[in-house]
Amino acid sequence: VSSEQRARSPGAGDGHSSAPVVAVDCNGADLGPAEVAAGAHIAAQQGARVILFGPEDELGAPGDGIDVVHAPLSIAKSSDPARAVRANPEASIVQAARAVAQDQAQALVCAGGTGAALAAGLFNIKRTRGVYRPALALPLPVPGHPVTLLDVGANVEVRREHLVQFAFMGAALVRTVFGVSRPRVALLSNGAEAVRGSLLVVEAHGELRRQAAAGLDAFEFVGNVEGDGLVAGAADVVVTDGFTGNVALKLMEGTSQRVLSAVRDAAMSTPRAKLGGALLRPALRGFRGQVDPERQGGAYLLGLRRLGVVPHGRFTRAGFAQAILRAQRGAREDIVGQTQRALRQAGALREAPMSAQVASLPERE
Amino acid sequence: VSSEQRARSPGAGDGHSSAPVVAVDCNGADLGPAEVAAGAHIAAQQGARVILFGPEDELGAPGDGIDVVHAPLSIAKSSDPARAVRANPEASIVQAARAVAQDQAQALVCAGGTGAALAAGLFNIKRTRGVYRPALALPLPVPGHPVTLLDVGANVEVRREHLVQFAFMGAALVRTVFGVSRPRVALLSNGAEAVRGSLLVVEAHGELRRQAAAGLDAFEFVGNVEGDGLVAGAADVVVTDGFTGNVALKLMEGTSQRVLSAVRDAAMSTPRAKLGGALLRPALRGFRGQVDPERQGGAYLLGLRRLGVVPHGRFTRAGFAQAILRAQRGAREDIVGQTQRALRQAGALREAPMSAQVASLPERE
Repeated sequence: VSSEQRARSPGAGDGHSSAPVVAVDCNGADLGPAEVAAGAHIAAQQGARVILFGPEDELGAPGDGIDVVHAPLSIAKSSDPARAVRANPEASIVQAARAVAQDQAQALVCAGGTGAALAAGLFNIKRTRGVYRPALALPLPVPGHPVTLLDVGANVEVRREHLVQFAFMGAALVRTVFGVSRPRVALLSNGAEAVRGSLLVVEAHGELRRQAAAGLDAFEFVGNVEGDGLVAGAADVVVTDGFTGNVALKLMEGTSQRVLSAVRDAAMSTPRAKLGGALLRPALRGFRGQVDPERQGGAYLLGLRRLGVVPHGRFTRAGFAQAILRAQRGAREDIVGQTQRALRQAGALREAPMSAQVASLPERE
Repeated sequence: VSSEQRARSPGAGDGHSSAPVVAVDCNGADLGPAEVAAGAHIAAQQGARVILFGPEDELGAPGDGIDVVHAPLSIAKSSDPARAVRANPEASIVQAARAVAQDQAQALVCAGGTGAALAAGLFNIKRTRGVYRPALALPLPVPGHPVTLLDVGANVEVRREHLVQFAFMGAALVRTVFGVSRPRVALLSNGAEAVRGSLLVVEAHGELRRQAAAGLDAFEFVGNVEGDGLVAGAADVVVTDGFTGNVALKLMEGTSQRVLSAVRDAAMSTPRAKLGGALLRPALRGFRGQVDPERQGGAYLLGLRRLGVVPHGRFTRAGFAQAILRAQRGAREDIVGQTQRALRQAGALREAPMSAQVASLPERE
């Protein structure tokens, strides 16, 4: 596969040659692989170089900056992604991850399940040296107060040292991608005081306090934030375990939708309200655009040797195009290298041999 | 104190005598003890019998159905409520809890900190026999889909058997208070499938499945719900640990507020939108009323030998009045007894001696 793909590597001599290549698994999207491919074409028009993995007949022809690898087998819906990745080396996500591991591409985008992306990434791209666990970091579309939450679902059970590393990983992402020079980092908890929280959070708080007291350049540790602080601009990066982060993310989306639909219902309840709703609608459109999750392109999969981006499966082509452009930009700006340098400077890298890390891959994700 | 209070017990011969008495700690409210007392007077006009504990000069005179005990010492803001309760037997919340323990009152309302209410309740009113841990259950004001979430902050660290009991406690509350004959109970998790979630959630899921298979009368176990399911009417009762529950609750409040304020901002952005906002406002008022947290009166403190209700410290008199009326109604309808009967029928009561339970009181809450 390697030599064949290298021969077909996109963009040779087409003016895109300086840009990193993004390997895209097209399987698993709600609207089908063709929608992901359509997103890739939008991204390619803006300079992206892409290799698409999926069923050839649905992906369309290769084009300027776009190559296609026929990989019809999808494991996006597998209930045991780690096992599915091991058992199916020809699955689209596995081939895409392998292309990144073999440096045919420099970043991974997975339109299917997070679990499959994580497992395929761990087995093929592998962890960054010294990183305990990859994490999913999602820039939340809070108007006026962008905040990046991690982990939003890669690690259901974590230890203190994982949360501490997540702080560095999130800070490096926000510094690189959003240009915040010294991000404010907080821990999500059930109270603002240092003694509040689960044992895990209290311990991580203590460790981050110690790091901060010892002179922390990578970010400013602002302590704990509560649930409302997450959406109130109290921090640029909010760190939590993947269980709480996933619940929080979906609750936020669900609550926003319910409130907006209640406003819509109110605007249908009387003739007077109907007129009001019609007049207000154009102004609300701007707000809807600001909170549109497709604008960010999805979550960043951090902690592997190459960057991953995981758009939501329900995205349209616009969201998939964003995901590809984000992945390309993140690879060009070397988020992975920036993160590792910050971890090394703070002495927060793991010392154990890599073999032990592969063995610790969780069964269930 | 006991005999003196008994002599002054409110409502003797005033027509209120059949109603349970509610002991109210007035310290700790954002608007001060006088606001809580004002709420008590509203509740008394609707038949409540109340003993107020707080600074006498701020509580006003006793009246029809209302007695006053001078208890100026507040421990509502203590960072270590368990220690504060032990060290301050004259604190208002401790006196209020003692009044309930001595049956001068049949329910407790605490306007101050949850931690102080929990600690004072545990030391004085004590756990219901066979209940591992008290829990805070909050009826969430989701329009069209009322749902009760527990625990929202009493237990930061829990075990499987605690979550299982919370399911029974929440179901008994919802059946009694909201008249749902067989409540649908779910576990909050990061995925709908039984294998998704923290180890804790997966274990509790298995145990509740086993109970359901063995024929469960108290409720219907509907499995896991994710964050968005919490606000989508997927269950009548949603069970989680106090860390996740507290984060979820505050995030939901914060997100609602941010979306509504964005709508308000949009309605100020152009002359056309301003007119639209003005026309829509009356229709939105109904929605605001539906989601007003004061309407429910606050969270129920379940698992003690008497019922507690914990309104939010920022409530106005209307919310405190609701809290008192809810406590009175819950005492009359014997939520505590209903819960214990359901737990006993399911074999979910704890077998260990009570002394071990008192010893397990967490230091930090």
